[in-house]
Amino acid sequence: MKKIFFTPGPSQLYFTVEEHLKSALKDNVASISHRSKAYEAIHQRAVENIKELLQLPEGYHVLFTGSANEIWERIVQNLIVSESFHFVNGSFSNRFHDIAENYKINALAKKAEDGKVVAPEEALIPQSCELIAMTQNETSTGAAQPLEDIYAIRKAFPDKLLSLDVVSSAPYIPMDYSQVDTAYFSVQKCFGLPAGLGVWIVNVACVEKALEKLNNDQIIGSYHSLPSMLEKSEKNQTSETPNVLGIDLLGKVTGDMLTKGIDQIRRETEYKSAVLYQAIEECSQLAPFVKEEKYRSKTTLVAETKVDSSEVIGALAQKGIVLGSGYGKYKKEHIRIANFPTHSKESAELIADELVRNFK
Amino acid sequence: MKKIFFTPGPSQLYFTVEEHLKSALKDNVASISHRSKAYEAIHQRAVENIKELLQLPEGYHVLFTGSANEIWERIVQNLIVSESFHFVNGSFSNRFHDIAENYKINALAKKAEDGKVVAPEEALIPQSCELIAMTQNETSTGAAQPLEDIYAIRKAFPDKLLSLDVVSSAPYIPMDYSQVDTAYFSVQKCFGLPAGLGVWIVNVACVEKALEKLNNDQIIGSYHSLPSMLEKSEKNQTSETPNVLGIDLLGKVTGDMLTKGIDQIRRETEYKSAVLYQAIEECSQLAPFVKEEKYRSKTTLVAETKVDSSEVIGALAQKGIVLGSGYGKYKKEHIRIANFPTHSKESAELIADELVRNFK
Repeated sequence: MKKIFFTPGPSQLYFTVEEHLKSALKDNVASISHRSKAYEAIHQRAVENIKELLQLPEGYHVLFTGSANEIWERIVQNLIVSESFHFVNGSFSNRFHDIAENYKINALAKKAEDGKVVAPEEALIPQSCELIAMTQNETSTGAAQPLEDIYAIRKAFPDKLLSLDVVSSAPYIPMDYSQVDTAYFSVQKCFGLPAGLGVWIVNVACVEKALEKLNNDQIIGSYHSLPSMLEKSEKNQTSETPNVLGIDLLGKVTGDMLTKGIDQIRRETEYKSAVLYQAIEECSQLAPFVKEEKYRSKTTLVAETKVDSSEVIGALAQKGIVLGSGYGKYKKEHIRIANFPTHSKESAELIADELVRNFK
Repeated sequence: MKKIFFTPGPSQLYFTVEEHLKSALKDNVASISHRSKAYEAIHQRAVENIKELLQLPEGYHVLFTGSANEIWERIVQNLIVSESFHFVNGSFSNRFHDIAENYKINALAKKAEDGKVVAPEEALIPQSCELIAMTQNETSTGAAQPLEDIYAIRKAFPDKLLSLDVVSSAPYIPMDYSQVDTAYFSVQKCFGLPAGLGVWIVNVACVEKALEKLNNDQIIGSYHSLPSMLEKSEKNQTSETPNVLGIDLLGKVTGDMLTKGIDQIRRETEYKSAVLYQAIEECSQLAPFVKEEKYRSKTTLVAETKVDSSEVIGALAQKGIVLGSGYGKYKKEHIRIANFPTHSKESAELIADELVRNFK
């Protein structure tokens, strides 16, 4: 039976990826020099498509790393000297906090209970902190920070750098990126691409901070310091030999998404999310883990299970549907359902029907 | 016309890659969780095949990064506190030296003239230095450090960490890895794989050094600190969501290489190298850039051209052969020819014939 992955880590590939891979092989994309015009065109297409899809403001740069983990580290190295503040809504926002501590940053944090988010008024952000880290969509718990919260923090702290994790919500989330200084995602979530590539968005305030650190003789990394990355990026190149095939596929898939239209992608995401949450609410054996509706993620849906989560996962597996288990300590108590652009309305309806049929 | 890439950056894909990609798509390799048993099996196969192919001693670990550039940085972060010594035989060994300087390491260096290597007796390595960095095969100039030189340095400095760049010579070079503490390569050279993956080999002395730094409250990175990488690696996992597809292809291609046999790969590499150097010597318009035969790379052959290198590259392009131009300032004055395991004897003979026919 053909499987469809609704896991929120690596997930189902975007439905056009296989064809794009074939054409990439035909065009020798994996063999061309990363210093060639052919590569520069591939790089430029990916950057321009992302800018258009996310409607990035003028002056925002798009850079490529190996993973979102790497971006956390590069933010710490380039954008913080001594103090940061982290909204911790779950395991992934907590990991960013840990990475800052690994670099001897005084990393302050306000932690939400699992399944909730830190409200802006709960966060006591001191004047001494240089960067505020928020996670729009916490993949571990399915708790999403409303965009108004992010805009409220921006308004309250206009002079601090604001960093936003949109790892598992871009491009669905209709974020106004002018309200943050840096944002990032990895391609194996909503973009439906093979893992091994992170996308890092930075504005001029980030560049200035990195240069200030550099001019003060502080370490900001090496081949992937922000100034090094930007210097190459201006030529549509990278410092190292990058994941050329991944960047090629990213440019092609974002092109497909632009053709489909971001509004259509958003409407479909909301429809599928509504269908799935309704089914979860109908099931006596299941309940949304995030109790307050306004904090519920529409791209990574998490449900508590009264039975062992493997029972729910097993029931759907019989229909070729691969659901995710709970994250970390919730492995057996939660299921996680990705609702990404590649997932069809029909397959979301199938999951909803099967959940209700088996676990009502 | 079908092209064959003899470029020494990204190069021709190993001839089995296309089939392996197809089976990876069929098996949902890009969609499975990087915390699943299925991923662990993929990871383990790649690690074990590399250990066997390179005949790594007991106790050596194989780790995955995004690039060889990243490995330079991780070596600096984890294995050096204050001083390193670099054998600089060209642009890539020099870049490692620069990365150490970016991290405020007192990075000493002995630089060879282009096309030559630093002989062991020329290197004045002080007792204070913690790590000695050597480059077995310098991709920019085609100068290769003889293995005896590496063994001589090991013998002279048994207490220092010795790091070896085999980016463009592994698995061809019959290196005794017990003579170094760390070595590394990227997969887009001899392994014929899409770029976006670096392979880092470390022994227990490296692990001890990283732990010593950590225990002395020094920064050794975060998700890719050596202890973090090892902890995950012991479970056949990685800290971040890795380039799963790349690791899958690496395991499959190294499996193919084991089936073929490393001795056969080495014999063929030497045959093709001899054919190509002989042709270069026969051409009045060409000459090996590395004058002393014992320093000539057998995997990345560099020739000076009396005509503009684009003429030579253009002549071969008519036969579907893509040669590399010179590196950096030698762009117009050199050609570079990769001689990797995927390149057939017949295609090497074709290049030799065409060079002689056009440039004798």
